[in-house]
Amino acid sequence: MSVRIVELIARKRDGGELASAEIEGIISAFMQGEITDYQMSALLMAIFFRGLSDGETVALTEAMLHSGSVVSLEHITAFKVDKHSTGGVGDKISICLAPMVAACGAPVPMVSGRGLGHTGGTLDKLEAISGFQTHVEVERFREIVASVGTCMIGQTREIAPADKRIYALRDVTATVECIPLIVASILSKKLAEGIDGLVLDVKVGRGAFMKTETDARALAEALVRVGTQAGKKVTAVLTRMDAPLGRTIGNANETREALEILHGKGPSDVLECTLVLGSEMLLLAGIASSQEDGVNRLRACIKDGSALAVMRKMVEAQGGDVSVVDDPSKLTMAEQTVDIPAPVAGYITGMDALEFGLTAVAMGAGRSRADENVNPRVGIELLKKPGEHVNAGEACVRLYLEAHQQGDVFAARIAKAISFSMAGPTPLPLVIDTIRAEPNAT
Amino acid sequence: MSVRIVELIARKRDGGELASAEIEGIISAFMQGEITDYQMSALLMAIFFRGLSDGETVALTEAMLHSGSVVSLEHITAFKVDKHSTGGVGDKISICLAPMVAACGAPVPMVSGRGLGHTGGTLDKLEAISGFQTHVEVERFREIVASVGTCMIGQTREIAPADKRIYALRDVTATVECIPLIVASILSKKLAEGIDGLVLDVKVGRGAFMKTETDARALAEALVRVGTQAGKKVTAVLTRMDAPLGRTIGNANETREALEILHGKGPSDVLECTLVLGSEMLLLAGIASSQEDGVNRLRACIKDGSALAVMRKMVEAQGGDVSVVDDPSKLTMAEQTVDIPAPVAGYITGMDALEFGLTAVAMGAGRSRADENVNPRVGIELLKKPGEHVNAGEACVRLYLEAHQQGDVFAARIAKAISFSMAGPTPLPLVIDTIRAEPNAT
Repeated sequence: MSVRIVELIARKRDGGELASAEIEGIISAFMQGEITDYQMSALLMAIFFRGLSDGETVALTEAMLHSGSVVSLEHITAFKVDKHSTGGVGDKISICLAPMVAACGAPVPMVSGRGLGHTGGTLDKLEAISGFQTHVEVERFREIVASVGTCMIGQTREIAPADKRIYALRDVTATVECIPLIVASILSKKLAEGIDGLVLDVKVGRGAFMKTETDARALAEALVRVGTQAGKKVTAVLTRMDAPLGRTIGNANETREALEILHGKGPSDVLECTLVLGSEMLLLAGIASSQEDGVNRLRACIKDGSALAVMRKMVEAQGGDVSVVDDPSKLTMAEQTVDIPAPVAGYITGMDALEFGLTAVAMGAGRSRADENVNPRVGIELLKKPGEHVNAGEACVRLYLEAHQQGDVFAARIAKAISFSMAGPTPLPLVIDTIRAEPNAT
Repeated sequence: MSVRIVELIARKRDGGELASAEIEGIISAFMQGEITDYQMSALLMAIFFRGLSDGETVALTEAMLHSGSVVSLEHITAFKVDKHSTGGVGDKISICLAPMVAACGAPVPMVSGRGLGHTGGTLDKLEAISGFQTHVEVERFREIVASVGTCMIGQTREIAPADKRIYALRDVTATVECIPLIVASILSKKLAEGIDGLVLDVKVGRGAFMKTETDARALAEALVRVGTQAGKKVTAVLTRMDAPLGRTIGNANETREALEILHGKGPSDVLECTLVLGSEMLLLAGIASSQEDGVNRLRACIKDGSALAVMRKMVEAQGGDVSVVDDPSKLTMAEQTVDIPAPVAGYITGMDALEFGLTAVAMGAGRSRADENVNPRVGIELLKKPGEHVNAGEACVRLYLEAHQQGDVFAARIAKAISFSMAGPTPLPLVIDTIRAEPNAT
């Protein structure tokens, strides 16, 4: 392969197509050390410029998927479905969504990530629950999904190791922003979970990876096309991520907010996002007959406590403090609070999700390097949300900090990230569009 | 630099420009191991797609040049000039050219390469002279150039080591064919010789790196623009390389042919190429008043034996057998000869330089890997040249092989690489164009 790889890089560089067997050979030789990192990064940059066809992306997805082990969930006959978000600020949807969908009859085997950059991670949020284990052996994961209906764990070393190595290279060679590579990376990890269907929450806006609707739509459509060609049922939902989702950014506070949804409370945007994504999951699973039916089923499982019961069982199975599920207020934050007041009376027109996210990271709620620890007790609370009216001097945002932390810099940064106007803004819908596979595409 | 390099790669990837200081920083960090090979190869691929401006190419040239030591020839007040060829088959011009130009009064400090791929290398050819040393200490190189007028050595480890490392990467990452990278690579090495001027022989055609006149012209123009901006006097000559130059391909035979030029003999195309390039060198040096004057001066120094005298002194200074200079026929070839006859009577219309070159390599005259040795005694002689008439069965080409070698395969290959026609072809001029710097460009 060492000589041949130069020809394959040159072919891609010149706009040619690589055969599935060639892509499989590249990934396998790369993992065996026969193709070097510098050859892979040259190929990745060539792909950045020339793209990959859907067929090539399917081949890359499957090659990366099969570079590791695939969890077998064949002992569970029900349709297994998961959700993946491209990452937002205040995005705690997975935590309430998975038990709700499981309670409706579709098992949710969920392998999640940690926070990196301005976006948080489900694992960090869940670990705010005392004792909760996100490192779970594959065998135990299979048991929990079967008995409880859902289990949320971190990516093991066995899952798509080629993706892990390639992503690490992309991160330091300016080849991250490339739709086919993003698609293959997401799908190779998710397909390793043993799922039958996948709903993708593709975020759009200031706080999202995709800043424009055009880019986000292209990614969403590619995910649906490639995922479908890889033999899964896939739907993508484009949702707005200009302002943070919900009223909390952090870890303990976001988990608390997600648990409140299961208690029939919580912010309306978090609930809406959960219901939209959940109903799509139930549609893929063949459980809901329509989007409306899906939403009704999800609302019913909140009302009758069955979603909360799944959550309780999952936390128990994963070693967490179950009392937190029944009383989310036990998830407390650091004692020092700093309120950011409105400078004028008026309407809040924007809260820059990116700046809010980056400030939360700087406060200690997230990480800018993969080896950093997060503090579950620090975070941001949105006392007001975009569209709401405030009086001059009224607190809009509250920061939670440890006693030794200086709040001024963070407060100044957040103050600058809020915009006001005298007139009430026209609210934009949270859900922009839903992209489903073409009928008979599989 | 490790974080910042990602931004710089991304900027180039997106079509932006890198500042000179940024390019200098990249090369310096790369040589210090702060930028990895995989980051460099991603940057090289981005440059492949986006190109480099002349300013960026000058900065890259100078950064690579200053990654090593620059030979100081300030003790020689005369205008020092060199020639570089992009590589052809049968191209032994340097060997006769350097002593001729030096005899006319312009010192020629020449750092040459070895053969690689289908093209031969001046060092391999010179080493056919028994005892000739191409490894010469820099101090001794400076002395020989000053006392003899010319010295021909190999690239030392001190000359442009960044180019050496980057070229090795380009070779295995499909980023060789990129004009600004080629320009910076050639110029960084040549500028390290301490020259004031440079004439570039940019070959075009079947046996050249640049197959089309358009590509060759683009390279030639870039070399002249960038070299001039780097403060040197630079001219490029586009010459045809469809058929081998001269009547020999190999090492001992090519050196013999070059020495014959100094004796007033040798093939007309070798002489023409030497006179054209040499007169451009003398023009840059301010010695010739016109191209014609340059040619006359070069012819005169053959006639009066002064060029041969320089050659004799150089061979002596570099430890070689001087008697060979006076009697080039002492450079003998291997004893086994295989003649390739014309299948029909007619005119030779073509001798594919690439196939001739590759066959010579296969015979042992060149190398396909950098660590191989060459055999100076094997090679090819063109008994007839394109344009000449042959009778059916008349020998066109003679192969020289060691006794143990099988000639059939090589003969069959060469036979296929010769084309014939009943009508005499219209000869195409050897020199296609000469590209000089704009007046006042420096």
